[in-house]
Amino acid sequence: MPTERMEAFSDGVIAILITVMVLELPTPHGTTWAALHDALPVLLTYVLSFVYLGIYWNNHHHMLQATDRVNGLILWANLHLLFWLSLIPFTTAWMGQNHFAAVPTAAYGIDLLAAALAYYALQKTITRDQGEESLLATAVGRDLKGKVSPLLYASGIGLSFLNDWLAVAVYAGVALMWLVPDRRLERTIDRRPTPGPGESAP
Amino acid sequence: MPTERMEAFSDGVIAILITVMVLELPTPHGTTWAALHDALPVLLTYVLSFVYLGIYWNNHHHMLQATDRVNGLILWANLHLLFWLSLIPFTTAWMGQNHFAAVPTAAYGIDLLAAALAYYALQKTITRDQGEESLLATAVGRDLKGKVSPLLYASGIGLSFLNDWLAVAVYAGVALMWLVPDRRLERTIDRRPTPGPGESAP
Amino acid sequence: MPTERMEAFSDGVIAILITVMVLELPTPHGTTWAALHDALPVLLTYVLSFVYLGIYWNNHHHMLQATDRVNGLILWANLHLLFWLSLIPFTTAWMGQNHFAAVPTAAYGIDLLAAALAYYALQKTITRDQGEESLLATAVGRDLKGKVSPLLYASGIGLSFLNDWLAVAVYAGVALMWLVPDRRLERTIDRRPTPGPGESAP
Amino acid sequence: MPTERMEAFSDGVIAILITVMVLELPTPHGTTWAALHDALPVLLTYVLSFVYLGIYWNNHHHMLQATDRVNGLILWANLHLLFWLSLIPFTTAWMGQNHFAAVPTAAYGIDLLAAALAYYALQKTITRDQGEESLLATAVGRDLKGKVSPLLYASGIGLSFLNDWLAVAVYAGVALMWLVPDRRLERTIDRRPTPGPGESAP
Repeated sequence: MPTERMEAFSDGVIAILITVMVLELPTPHGTTWAALHDALPVLLTYVLSFVYLGIYWNNHHHMLQATDRVNGLILWANLHLLFWLSLIPFTTAWMGQNHFAAVPTAAYGIDLLAAALAYYALQKTITRDQGEESLLATAVGRDLKGKVSPLLYASGIGLSFLNDWLAVAVYAGVALMWLVPDRRLERTIDRRPTPGPGESAP
Repeated sequence: MPTERMEAFSDGVIAILITVMVLELPTPHGTTWAALHDALPVLLTYVLSFVYLGIYWNNHHHMLQATDRVNGLILWANLHLLFWLSLIPFTTAWMGQNHFAAVPTAAYGIDLLAAALAYYALQKTITRDQGEESLLATAVGRDLKGKVSPLLYASGIGLSFLNDWLAVAVYAGVALMWLVPDRRLERTIDRRPTPGPGESAP
Repeated sequence: MPTERMEAFSDGVIAILITVMVLELPTPHGTTWAALHDALPVLLTYVLSFVYLGIYWNNHHHMLQATDRVNGLILWANLHLLFWLSLIPFTTAWMGQNHFAAVPTAAYGIDLLAAALAYYALQKTITRDQGEESLLATAVGRDLKGKVSPLLYASGIGLSFLNDWLAVAVYAGVALMWLVPDRRLERTIDRRPTPGPGESAP
Repeated sequence: MPTERMEAFSDGVIAILITVMVLELPTPHGTTWAALHDALPVLLTYVLSFVYLGIYWNNHHHMLQATDRVNGLILWANLHLLFWLSLIPFTTAWMGQNHFAAVPTAAYGIDLLAAALAYYALQKTITRDQGEESLLATAVGRDLKGKVSPLLYASGIGLSFLNDWLAVAVYAGVALMWLVPDRRLERTIDRRPTPGPGESAP
């Protein structure tokens, strides 16, 4: 099976998640800058989650550029990733509305950790299907960032019981680390022979 | 008419339904693990409905892989299926927020039953249009799972008045039965001659 | 410019509108069949609006099958149609929650009337761009249904001040009239020479 | 990388934003025309934001018609634009529900200004990648409208503290100025040699 419809469905879900979070933003009480200032923790949490969903969309996009076909198992591994991403508006609202209290901040980190593991599982499912010599397997290589992130999330979860700002700083740090798009994949894809006209995926 | 736009529209609706349910999840009251624990029935119902919508998307995807063209009647049979799926967030919220009370749990099962019958009707509409010798008709075969599911839903509806957990167990059991993707279709599609480049659907 | 992206955007908006209406459905108060019965006017309004949006998607789909290219003016004529469709969840909620009171029922009809005129304007914009001899112009022909509908909506708007059920019956009648897909277009499209492989739109 | 998936994702986000705003429209209190009249400021704000999102979608569509490929930096420049657009429902609700009070009206203008700068940055990122001789660079030319808009938004922000209606009039004026689709791009694209069949983007 080709990858188009799985890409379209994932695009749809991530696009909706990113925008649905806006609905959770409560309209500020009052019409002063102070009212907007009170809404700041909620707005900052929104920015962080927007960036995380943007990163996932971006890397998902790169990963599927290096994928030629999907099967039933890959479809479910993808749905598993989308499940954890779909909880981000829920954990974002809980954390933001409670000004980064310990348990909601830990729950936010657990969701990020589960999404990272689900992404890793999806990547493994694809490379196992397409062989160790495949484009994706070569491009991903040792995948250092993918292995460090779960450790950082775990430390963020622990930190949220000591100091909430430290925990959020760790989550923001991982986001910054990933903001740089996955050059490995882009380079490897660029080295492929150019596809002829009529092929919708390179 | 080609199948692309009907696929895209269905993807859109199912992607939105899956994510819209998150909006129905109320933010837990308080910032303790106990608060999250209180939200557990709602969260579990969300997981069940997420899996059901995932199954429908997955099987819909497989079914349309084996479909070459659509007509006006197929478009409406598809909208009929989407109608019953669109009620899932509604019945999910009613059941989850009332801790699996009898009538909401039965209503949830009635929605699942109606969606299953609508899916079956869509399948019949397609195979009638494309002939008993068509790829889809061959792939579906005797369709045992498709015929057993409605009976199980009906028994779940009845059980919800005796024991709510038994009813939910039946619904979850049917979901597990379907989690295995439709290998019949995948095998049959694989046996087809490979499409040349430029064809967007295999 | 090709029609793909305008189709995709319209699909997205209509898919969201159809599902967003579910969010407006209030969870029934209580866990009895009577509670569901109280929600019946809201549910029936939902069904009517679901059918209307389904009809618009269906006919829009047929119309663009017979359209080869779009320009800036067509894009705006399409956005104009989407604007009036986007108000359907708003007028649906107002009418349903007030048990078909006179003014909300008239407002619902005004929205349907505006959407019908916007659809007609979009059709005209496309045929004017593509010539009176074009596929769409030939397929639409005298467009009897398209000309009768606005008159019926207008009579429904008037009736809503005399008898709300009569008004709703008129709206439901127009929907039934349109439920039959636009055979004219389907027949005319079928008569076209088959497109070769690689062309994404027939 | 081809532009398809970035287009699809942007279409998804803008389509959702346009429709999600409808959810923010509160159902009028009461069933009289007066009740609808009270909802008028909110409805008018909705119309203005609908037109703005329509303009962005339209121009984004034209811009990507003249773009052949994207890279990681362009993906992020696009997400940056989508971020500011995603705040439009938030600022729209704040402004509309407070009858154009000074600070919310200024905040609405700041959001429009940030979106305009983000659009400009996206355009620059694309033309820098594709060369000063590229189709997009030629089509955009001196980009007078793109340079005047930020100045007008800035004056609108200032005016919102003097006279709220003047500020809204400036915002509406900029929208009218842009309602005319970007003929420059359309003309330049039309002058390109016609693409052969099988190419999904012209």
